[in-house]
Amino acid sequence: METISENRSFGGVQGVYRHASNTCGCDMTFAVYMPPQAEDGPVPVLWYLSGLTCTHENAMAKAGMQEHAAEHGIALVFPDTSPRGDNVANDEAYDLGQGAGFYVNATRAPWKTHFRMYDYVVNELRDIVVKQFDVQDRHGITGHSMGGHGALTIAMRNPDLFESVSAFAPIANPTQSDWGRKQLSAYLGDDESAWADHDATLLLEDKGWKGDILVDQGQADQFLDLLKPDALAEMMARRRQPGTFRMQKGYDHSYFFVNSFAGDHVAWHAERLQ
Amino acid sequence: METISENRSFGGVQGVYRHASNTCGCDMTFAVYMPPQAEDGPVPVLWYLSGLTCTHENAMAKAGMQEHAAEHGIALVFPDTSPRGDNVANDEAYDLGQGAGFYVNATRAPWKTHFRMYDYVVNELRDIVVKQFDVQDRHGITGHSMGGHGALTIAMRNPDLFESVSAFAPIANPTQSDWGRKQLSAYLGDDESAWADHDATLLLEDKGWKGDILVDQGQADQFLDLLKPDALAEMMARRRQPGTFRMQKGYDHSYFFVNSFAGDHVAWHAERLQ
Repeated sequence: METISENRSFGGVQGVYRHASNTCGCDMTFAVYMPPQAEDGPVPVLWYLSGLTCTHENAMAKAGMQEHAAEHGIALVFPDTSPRGDNVANDEAYDLGQGAGFYVNATRAPWKTHFRMYDYVVNELRDIVVKQFDVQDRHGITGHSMGGHGALTIAMRNPDLFESVSAFAPIANPTQSDWGRKQLSAYLGDDESAWADHDATLLLEDKGWKGDILVDQGQADQFLDLLKPDALAEMMARRRQPGTFRMQKGYDHSYFFVNSFAGDHVAWHAERLQ
Repeated sequence: METISENRSFGGVQGVYRHASNTCGCDMTFAVYMPPQAEDGPVPVLWYLSGLTCTHENAMAKAGMQEHAAEHGIALVFPDTSPRGDNVANDEAYDLGQGAGFYVNATRAPWKTHFRMYDYVVNELRDIVVKQFDVQDRHGITGHSMGGHGALTIAMRNPDLFESVSAFAPIANPTQSDWGRKQLSAYLGDDESAWADHDATLLLEDKGWKGDILVDQGQADQFLDLLKPDALAEMMARRRQPGTFRMQKGYDHSYFFVNSFAGDHVAWHAERLQ
């Protein structure tokens, strides 16, 4: 593991690291924020999965989560959103290929060689973070848009590995959306039965979540038709899923929205992780 | 004035605007954050001047100031750092020309036509902000690096226009630094007597500041030799200038440093503006 940069931030350290990923078959870059409390012993971990087109860098620079992580004493992990490199398959569209891994393990050519972001986050990077950083093996997960989809689906499929889950404007019902059908078809093939494991609304119906869920959605989000928060909210209510779904007046899909509620989410995870 | 974007942020509005600047002779872009308290009446204004290579966007996206401005009920203004455009003089170096206005009124060709960032901030943009936004004509000013230099020098030269001043890692003694001599020579000519009005340490010696000053400087800043905080700290002490100079252990020159202390600075200005 190579250190790209380390910057002091709110008394802790915001680092960026690169490693050769066996899962993705390419070098992967990720960011970890270690709060000042880590000097006194291992801290729990909150994962933040980013959205389409993002790298590890967007939320690290713009979500303002370090301040809250330092207040509550939890580490943050910001993975990339896909494998990358000249040898990695890509598509000219912003929403397929590099920057758009959708947190699945692709089974179809040309994607299956490298696009294994589900295994990468759940297994490989999780092992690295637990072994290389002074953290507890105790994890919460959140994310924005495609990353909100990733957080919800990964948590519900792995209740033994994650203690808490929340999402900012998640792609909530991708099997019924153009943010989903295109990608799941490309990565997993046209048999839609393979898609259900990657749809938060369907997983909620099938499995639910052991704890409570926090979802924030901007009321003025320009992508409401693609995100389909109504499906998730309806399923949360229908399944009597403990949790909170907040429709936030006037907020759009940008990082100004994420930033505005980052403090709530970090505090919420911290309460459940500590 | 044209609205480029407006995003809800911490209950207020983060806007980006463009206008034809008479002072700079080109279109200029700037950002204004209006906190939720502005709905109930005019709020005071805190100006944030950015450093070399920055636009209005860097601090708006990365400094995390909106959260604190919303807490305290003050507006934020993020000007650009220079005139811009194909018709505007430039230099291939990152620290001269576009992105490096140094908050002076250039008197030498080819710069004097457009590079009038001192007048732009102090007069033209200030008038626009007071007239176009629901703010009080009551201002504080801060900034980072070249922008810290701008904040300190503009405040000390205009004590009737500004109520409070602070800086993050300012270029503190540019007449004695390669971050300063090169630019002041290009913009103002080789007569160094014209430079003194743009050197915070010399202005502090000559005029001082009517109130107290807050300066934060990262102890691990990679540009300490160019910033020359020692000159400013020594002059603050020698002149018995009320104020606080903080050497912050382990912090570098990045926005992770600015972000870490943005809350302190916003609170400090709010106390003096309200």
